[in-house]
Amino acid sequence: MFAPVYLDHNATTPLDARVLEAMLPFLKERYGNASSRHEYGRAARAAIDTARQQVAAAVGAHPTEVIFTSGGSEANNLFIKGAAACLKPGTVGVSAIEHPCVREPARELTRQGWQLHEIAVDKEGRLDAIDYAAALAAPLRLVSVMLANNETGVLQDIPALAEKARGAKAWFHTDAVQALGKVKVDFRGLGVNALTVSAHKICGPKGAAALVLNKRIELKPLISGGGQERNLRSGTENVAAIVGFGAACELAVARLDEDAARLERLRDELEAGLARLGATVFSRNAARLPNTVFFAMPDIDGETLVAQLDRAGFAVASGSACSSASPEPSHTLLAMGVEAETARSAVRVSLGRGNTDEDVLRFLQTLGEMIGKLKKMAALAV
Amino acid sequence: MFAPVYLDHNATTPLDARVLEAMLPFLKERYGNASSRHEYGRAARAAIDTARQQVAAAVGAHPTEVIFTSGGSEANNLFIKGAAACLKPGTVGVSAIEHPCVREPARELTRQGWQLHEIAVDKEGRLDAIDYAAALAAPLRLVSVMLANNETGVLQDIPALAEKARGAKAWFHTDAVQALGKVKVDFRGLGVNALTVSAHKICGPKGAAALVLNKRIELKPLISGGGQERNLRSGTENVAAIVGFGAACELAVARLDEDAARLERLRDELEAGLARLGATVFSRNAARLPNTVFFAMPDIDGETLVAQLDRAGFAVASGSACSSASPEPSHTLLAMGVEAETARSAVRVSLGRGNTDEDVLRFLQTLGEMIGKLKKMAALAV
Repeated sequence: MFAPVYLDHNATTPLDARVLEAMLPFLKERYGNASSRHEYGRAARAAIDTARQQVAAAVGAHPTEVIFTSGGSEANNLFIKGAAACLKPGTVGVSAIEHPCVREPARELTRQGWQLHEIAVDKEGRLDAIDYAAALAAPLRLVSVMLANNETGVLQDIPALAEKARGAKAWFHTDAVQALGKVKVDFRGLGVNALTVSAHKICGPKGAAALVLNKRIELKPLISGGGQERNLRSGTENVAAIVGFGAACELAVARLDEDAARLERLRDELEAGLARLGATVFSRNAARLPNTVFFAMPDIDGETLVAQLDRAGFAVASGSACSSASPEPSHTLLAMGVEAETARSAVRVSLGRGNTDEDVLRFLQTLGEMIGKLKKMAALAV
Repeated sequence: MFAPVYLDHNATTPLDARVLEAMLPFLKERYGNASSRHEYGRAARAAIDTARQQVAAAVGAHPTEVIFTSGGSEANNLFIKGAAACLKPGTVGVSAIEHPCVREPARELTRQGWQLHEIAVDKEGRLDAIDYAAALAAPLRLVSVMLANNETGVLQDIPALAEKARGAKAWFHTDAVQALGKVKVDFRGLGVNALTVSAHKICGPKGAAALVLNKRIELKPLISGGGQERNLRSGTENVAAIVGFGAACELAVARLDEDAARLERLRDELEAGLARLGATVFSRNAARLPNTVFFAMPDIDGETLVAQLDRAGFAVASGSACSSASPEPSHTLLAMGVEAETARSAVRVSLGRGNTDEDVLRFLQTLGEMIGKLKKMAALAV
């Protein structure tokens, strides 16, 4: 039976049954290419239009500001590379804790005459105000700071950061992939020029995401061709995934208050239990997502713990999912000044809609037993 | 009842029920992120590995040569832009009848110091040997010629073209999106460095395609980040779509001989009927795909005919689906030297697995009646 307890919702989420229901007609009889000028094509186009409205409504944007892409990594690359291609080389600033799909494109710009400023964070993982001011004075042309970190769940004060960027005439982007569905995401309220959201982090399908972009910003496309998405993202639209994204957005917004309150309660239970087991919870003093707990058990290797929890029927992460093929400790923790040894102990639990009180209780119980055994083994090995 | 006769398979195809069956577990309980190091992640990774083998087998490549992307447009852009970024600027050659997702990236290179040579075709739509030789002498660094044209279905002699490119040390890519599932596609036999194939043209899902790439070629990614797909295409893999792509490849290969023979028979019936109605069939003297008929009824506007056929319950295309939002006549026909007026009459019928003899008979009957009425109206209007 394939059903370990899933506690890795920041990596990806199960598709909500209602979202799959909304997608199925587009995987069956409504299979048209949205560019086709016949009944099948029009049905596909209408469905994309509806999804665009749903996504726009979820983030308080206008539907014409929504550019569908195949995923969050594509949307983040599109902003960084696409905006840079329209600007004279200058300084690009990204926080030191960005996802690799923001940091890597920013680093690549340095081969085209750009300067990169990786903006420091404090020990809780919040952007360092002094280093941000230094970056702004560079002068900064492009800046990307994530709304919520995928590992610690730490929320940045985007409205304040974006306002400063406006003063410096820099284009400000925020990766809101981890925030949507967990906290309110409001495009106008944030005051950003662009933000990224993704379907598969909010119980929608893999294969659809959006760059939400205001009209002040000019971009060159990564993928050119047929001219879809206002010429900013060519290619036959993944209709079913886009429809699923729209449905998932509608659900996420409708359930936000309820989900967030419930997840926060489970999270607090989990953290209380972890404290009893002697764990360190990272960024505990910062404003954070309600579902994310990034912790370390002293002297226990995170990878080992993740592997043992997997065998015991609990799916959790050590680093961020995308980089967990590499053995290096979390760059987020290192940027926060956490010692490499402690960072190597890090384990991430990210809760989701399907998790229950019992999941948390069983997880804590299993973890407690596991730690007892690991410590005994370590003692024997000495 | 939503069921016009679908005769637009070069735009997109219905998802085969067996392909959807293969995908569903990954839209339900097997929802893991393939980068996650737990049971859910391993199940996703194993499914992608299997699909990679299926896609590789379908085109006679090694699984490590398969780079999954979100679609054919992305794969074509990845080759053109990604290869150019690793080369000194020189000449890029693409046929004058390429899909916009090849022509546009090639045109964009001219802003980075590249010369573009659009290689001419003859009146049947076959590459012009003399102009190709001129391009090779440029000297050419990069060349992309499609295996089968999306509008006329014309097949190019890729093995011969690729051999000449090898002699000139140019990197040769072919867009085989329209060829797969309709004619044999053999990566080694074609002798190309890279080829593009896409799932949704072979009764697979939208959202998955591949750039098949030999190890001689170096590429820079369009989408950088987590390092997926050998660092050539970062981003959480669309597991369900990739699984569907693999299943669709396996089916397409298994059914190739049977499908091709049946489609060719239907196509010949259709063309015989069109000839009786006075139609001109483009590229009739060239080697073509077995499913594609691109024709014009003299003095009848193609857009009008497509719209009337749509109302009568037949889904066909006027230009290629991706560019059918623009009113310009087909660039493929113009490149073949067809007069703009005749090109404006063009209608494309592209048959698929689900079409029957009855579909063709009913289509011809409806078209005949329609033409009679349109001619009567035209006579009254004079």
